[in-house]
Amino acid sequence: MSLLVFGHKNPDTDSICSSLVMTNLKNKLGIDAKSCRLGEVRKEAEFVLNYFGVEPPEFLESVGSEDSCCLVDHNEYGQSVDGLQDATILEIVDHHKLGGITTATPLSMTLRPVGCTNTILYNMYIENKVEISKPIAGLMLSAILSDTLIFRSPTTTELDIEAGKALAKIAEVDYEKYGMEMFKAGTSLDGYSVEEIVNMDFKAFDMGTKKVGIGQVMTLDIDSVLSKKDEFLTYINASEFDMLYLAITDIIKEGSYMLYKSPDEIVANAFNVEPAQGVFVDGLVSRKKQLVPNLTPEVEKF
Amino acid sequence: MSLLVFGHKNPDTDSICSSLVMTNLKNKLGIDAKSCRLGEVRKEAEFVLNYFGVEPPEFLESVGSEDSCCLVDHNEYGQSVDGLQDATILEIVDHHKLGGITTATPLSMTLRPVGCTNTILYNMYIENKVEISKPIAGLMLSAILSDTLIFRSPTTTELDIEAGKALAKIAEVDYEKYGMEMFKAGTSLDGYSVEEIVNMDFKAFDMGTKKVGIGQVMTLDIDSVLSKKDEFLTYINASEFDMLYLAITDIIKEGSYMLYKSPDEIVANAFNVEPAQGVFVDGLVSRKKQLVPNLTPEVEKF
Repeated sequence: MSLLVFGHKNPDTDSICSSLVMTNLKNKLGIDAKSCRLGEVRKEAEFVLNYFGVEPPEFLESVGSEDSCCLVDHNEYGQSVDGLQDATILEIVDHHKLGGITTATPLSMTLRPVGCTNTILYNMYIENKVEISKPIAGLMLSAILSDTLIFRSPTTTELDIEAGKALAKIAEVDYEKYGMEMFKAGTSLDGYSVEEIVNMDFKAFDMGTKKVGIGQVMTLDIDSVLSKKDEFLTYINASEFDMLYLAITDIIKEGSYMLYKSPDEIVANAFNVEPAQGVFVDGLVSRKKQLVPNLTPEVEKF
Repeated sequence: MSLLVFGHKNPDTDSICSSLVMTNLKNKLGIDAKSCRLGEVRKEAEFVLNYFGVEPPEFLESVGSEDSCCLVDHNEYGQSVDGLQDATILEIVDHHKLGGITTATPLSMTLRPVGCTNTILYNMYIENKVEISKPIAGLMLSAILSDTLIFRSPTTTELDIEAGKALAKIAEVDYEKYGMEMFKAGTSLDGYSVEEIVNMDFKAFDMGTKKVGIGQVMTLDIDSVLSKKDEFLTYINASEFDMLYLAITDIIKEGSYMLYKSPDEIVANAFNVEPAQGVFVDGLVSRKKQLVPNLTPEVEKF
């Protein structure tokens, strides 16, 4: 049985690319591994796969006790494949906070506080002295540019920049130009419904006693969202979450327009702005480093 | 504030040495770190520290919200310092199963399925191109010999042997001869009470609905234990655990003598022997790889 390698549910570019890149590394090291995905390939990853001529991972519905798994870009049961508790986890490579998974036996686990899983994978190729082909470099670079917003996100580390620049050379692309092209392709909201946009990159959190949903959508076409503001608010206000925040992030202006179901006071205190639907929060680009830590104490006061 | 580096409670040689070795690595990399221990230094580690002329880590009672921690040789709240939930975990290096810790922010975590934490640390020195001094090599080698029973335990991997042999050269010792000397010093049971021997290396497990205690004592002086068999059984039978197993492991014969509070049937099925107090189980040397996985399904049937 192949080792099943997969990123998180609702996969972003890092999850899709991590799965393909880690599988390639395992295969190069003589290990039978299969690249899988836990959800649809989004436009941005689709652009990346087309650009470098790589087939997408296979869709994986669930796993069972006979399966061996390698988790990339996540380390929480809630974000992972159905049935994971019954399967054997042999390896985890991730850059998120530690999420409480337990195993029955020792495993390999490599977590690093960097901007992208593929930065860790890049260093694993170097350590294992495995050659990086042009398409594999392209996948890694794309994920790093995606997760770090072309090195603009506050989650970006020196290691991400170092890996990204080295990979851009192997992939033979101008990373700034290629990154913008990738974001344009990925953030086009043509053909998406309001519901699809809110849930595009959506995570649920428990903050104190409140159920809080935070969606983030990166786009270079802000107007197409804000022109449908009322439609978005109708959908957001009808949600089952106690609070729901949608950050429409403009990666060029390096800030986010906020639509929300929330007491105004929380928005005012968390982001230091005059609360208003569609308010622009300058500098707000990361859910992990800004939205979640800023909102948590304010929501918990309610 | 220094980064606090510590192994598990009731520290063995790997936990004491990991703490000192990781602290040395951090210091060499320019990071302010302090080596700590969560319990008394046992005879074996005392022999190691005296042999290589190294001061023991400082005793650490508890941590609080202002502390930054690096956990070595463990990754479970139950085995760690009091107050850990309030502190910040910046790094974990370990070779045990994944234990369910959660953090609020990303961290560095390096778990590898090898025989000893110091095998991982050895490779971190190599990766970081940090020179290994003779005493530091001695600490790492001692921990590897201790955890792998001089490469005899089934937990031993090629990486442990590779690291151990390289370190023996730097430490300038014959590892077989040194290891035996260390075990003899460490396993002398002179001056220990029955209670102290049972609890020397004792871990509690939940198996199904049962509370199960498993103690293991490595000694080269089996007779001094078995001559006090009745005294041991009186103590074991009075314990609050539903089942309790004490493995008296002879690292030369590569097997364990078992004393237990348990239905005979479990002992018979788990170890494939005629059950009897003091029965020798050939080949049984590892709690993690043999005692726990063999006992769990048998206890759960009860």
